[in-house]
Amino acid sequence: MYFETIQQFANTLLKLSELLDKAQAYSEERKFDIANLLNARLAPDQFSLGKQIQVACDNAKFAAARFAGQQAPSHPDTEQTVAEFKTRIEHTVDYLRSFKEDDFTDASDRRVVLGFLPHLYLMGHEYLHNFALPNFYFHVTTAYSILRNNGVSIGKQDYMAAPPFKPLESE
Amino acid sequence: MYFETIQQFANTLLKLSELLDKAQAYSEERKFDIANLLNARLAPDQFSLGKQIQVACDNAKFAAARFAGQQAPSHPDTEQTVAEFKTRIEHTVDYLRSFKEDDFTDASDRRVVLGFLPHLYLMGHEYLHNFALPNFYFHVTTAYSILRNNGVSIGKQDYMAAPPFKPLESE
Repeated sequence: MYFETIQQFANTLLKLSELLDKAQAYSEERKFDIANLLNARLAPDQFSLGKQIQVACDNAKFAAARFAGQQAPSHPDTEQTVAEFKTRIEHTVDYLRSFKEDDFTDASDRRVVLGFLPHLYLMGHEYLHNFALPNFYFHVTTAYSILRNNGVSIGKQDYMAAPPFKPLESE
Repeated sequence: MYFETIQQFANTLLKLSELLDKAQAYSEERKFDIANLLNARLAPDQFSLGKQIQVACDNAKFAAARFAGQQAPSHPDTEQTVAEFKTRIEHTVDYLRSFKEDDFTDASDRRVVLGFLPHLYLMGHEYLHNFALPNFYFHVTTAYSILRNNGVSIGKQDYMAAPPFKPLESE
């Protein structure tokens, strides 16, 4: 469960990286500064596209670290270019894929304390369902939505990693 | 795991119902036809807000049904008003909350066949991680984003059901 969640987060972040390629191609085709898109948002008091990517990466990274009882690596939010955001995603995916299933054996019963709420905790399984999953998909979907709202030609298949469908006839 | 997922889907749909109340209040305050908002979208080839709500309800309903090996109830997409969309959510939440933990005992190893891909299947745990979770949160977040993009005064706390934080001192 925890292991599959982290693998799925990694696969979803790789789709986000592909979305950035589409954003880059769109900016070249339409001849505008890609920074306009990286700084775009759906409302003036919302995080920009770039910040959504950083937060989604951190959601996934901290989930893996907290499930395993480890300290997450630090990734300062300094990215400015598509190449830098893609590197941030790549480093995050490498970190997520460094875990083995055994690393999460105790995940469900760990007490998870979030940095901004130092006197409160969630059990690991509560953190998974009530925090990590809704947060991660919120920021990835919002990144996707900012691109969609700005005219990049994408659909849900660009957001969702392909599920491992198998033919019914084969068994 | 499956039971907690379904409970969390129910809690998230109730947040979506509260978002509809905020949308209704906003339309009254700004004196516009709420249908304008229910028909709004972030791109011309995207589902409208109303359709996002219907799809999110169906994602959750079918997840519960498939995890339990049951037939889901039919909910035709006929909603037009905020009251009708809230009723759709209410019926879905009632259905989700009708399940007991034991109903999902075999969920992980069930073969799940989706209606639009009748010759393919996913194992229950693959359907959960690779399809049900990313789909559900995609449509709820997109509904939220359409409201946000149209000026409704909301933030992430209006999307996320409050996690059950507990004080560290209490134990």
